Amino acid sequence: MRIARFTTGEDPAYGLVDGAGEKIAEITGDPLYTKIELTGATHRVEDVRLLAPVIPRSKVIGIGKNYVDHAKEMGGEAPDVPLMFLVPNTAVVGPGDPVLIPSGLTQEVHYEGELAVVIGRLCKDVAPEDTGKVIFGYTVADDVTARDLQRGDGQWARAKGLDTFQPLGPWIETDLDPSDLRITTRRDGEVVQDGTTADMVHGVAELVAHASAAFTLLPGDVILTGTPAGVGPVVAGQRVEVEVEGIGVLSNPFVEA
Amino acid sequence: MRIARFTTGEDPAYGLVDGAGEKIAEITGDPLYTKIELTGATHRVEDVRLLAPVIPRSKVIGIGKNYVDHAKEMGGEAPDVPLMFLVPNTAVVGPGDPVLIPSGLTQEVHYEGELAVVIGRLCKDVAPEDTGKVIFGYTVADDVTARDLQRGDGQWARAKGLDTFQPLGPWIETDLDPSDLRITTRRDGEVVQDGTTADMVHGVAELVAHASAAFTLLPGDVILTGTPAGVGPVVAGQRVEVEVEGIGVLSNPFVEA
Repeated sequence: MRIARFTTGEDPAYGLVDGAGEKIAEITGDPLYTKIELTGATHRVEDVRLLAPVIPRSKVIGIGKNYVDHAKEMGGEAPDVPLMFLVPNTAVVGPGDPVLIPSGLTQEVHYEGELAVVIGRLCKDVAPEDTGKVIFGYTVADDVTARDLQRGDGQWARAKGLDTFQPLGPWIETDLDPSDLRITTRRDGEVVQDGTTADMVHGVAELVAHASAAFTLLPGDVILTGTPAGVGPVVAGQRVEVEVEGIGVLSNPFVEA
Repeated sequence: MRIARFTTGEDPAYGLVDGAGEKIAEITGDPLYTKIELTGATHRVEDVRLLAPVIPRSKVIGIGKNYVDHAKEMGGEAPDVPLMFLVPNTAVVGPGDPVLIPSGLTQEVHYEGELAVVIGRLCKDVAPEDTGKVIFGYTVADDVTARDLQRGDGQWARAKGLDTFQPLGPWIETDLDPSDLRITTRRDGEVVQDGTTADMVHGVAELVAHASAAFTLLPGDVILTGTPAGVGPVVAGQRVEVEVEGIGVLSNPFVEA
């Protein structure tokens, strides 16, 4: 299933999106917490505003240097142990939402296209072979990064966590094998990243297990999976599209804050 | 006012604690969001279980190396710009709650006694001179840190964010001048930290302004303020008490997970 969160001008609702990505069948409640039941209402995707498909109540866990070629371009090696960092939920925006660049804080913003894992159940210390039971689904992320703050601060809280720096969407795909999905990032239409999740150093099951060994995971928590090679700058006036095979395209304009 | 969150075995409630710290007058709702009204019920503090006075819906922002003498003992200097890191709300526990040491992950856990700021209003880009308007109050924190993970991971998500590694309490004091408060940490009764908030490199107003320049702050967000010199190890079987003048004592036993 493809589960979207959307608004038609009123309170956010959830719905099931068809395979063509054209229609939404509205459902009752938040599917993270309640059984999926159709309300009977349907909408055309183009008539609604899609929202971030999940607002984490606890955490977005980012993963650094999880593709060998990206670790190299950052001037290092992929770490033996997954490198985790935290992104605040105040950074999350949805498909189409502008990413706001605060020029007073950063002069060097990069896109990072990624596969994102959405957790569906409260869990702790999950074995890699059991992670399928706690994963609700997958969405697309742009792990927007202020490279200058990342270098200068040492800790990545600001670099990764500025308001609007965590676009998620366009929806959550619940039926997906994440082991070999093409990830493509386009900046103003030009392909700048073109990788596959098969090149992850630590795969999805290992990342979820690793995160759950440190932190209790809650429904709605998001675990990023790292970005392939090809990261680069994006400036106000440009648009970044991240496409993950089997999910869809997350597209966001970048504008001056 | 001193505002505590507590339970008598049922749903958590909030209450006003008297100056002696002996009685709680129950109030309706969460004072972060609703006007304070007494229910009429009163309890003796010793008859209830105090809980973390706030569960952040968005973030705990930690501050590294904000006292010169602590920066020195960590082998560095205090940074010109406040060094922020993020702690997940799943790490938060209350007064008296055990801090669980996972020996499979860390062999070197340190206490860090700190003053914690609780944000009361949604805000962004707050000027230092206006931060008083967005601060709800102050509580006491033990910014428990796995030093080996801190060194090994580089990013401090695990080191600072393991489950139970963020004790907060015993209550929120809303009327307090934070500029010169004594902070004392005791490990099994022995004084191991004895500092004053007057020695902060970046004061409370500057920290809140700095955080709000990067992140939208939400009611219930917590901003730590750094720890004075004297950090050191704590092992299972020991108890750490952090006392901040004008607020009270936060006491937690450490046990094997």
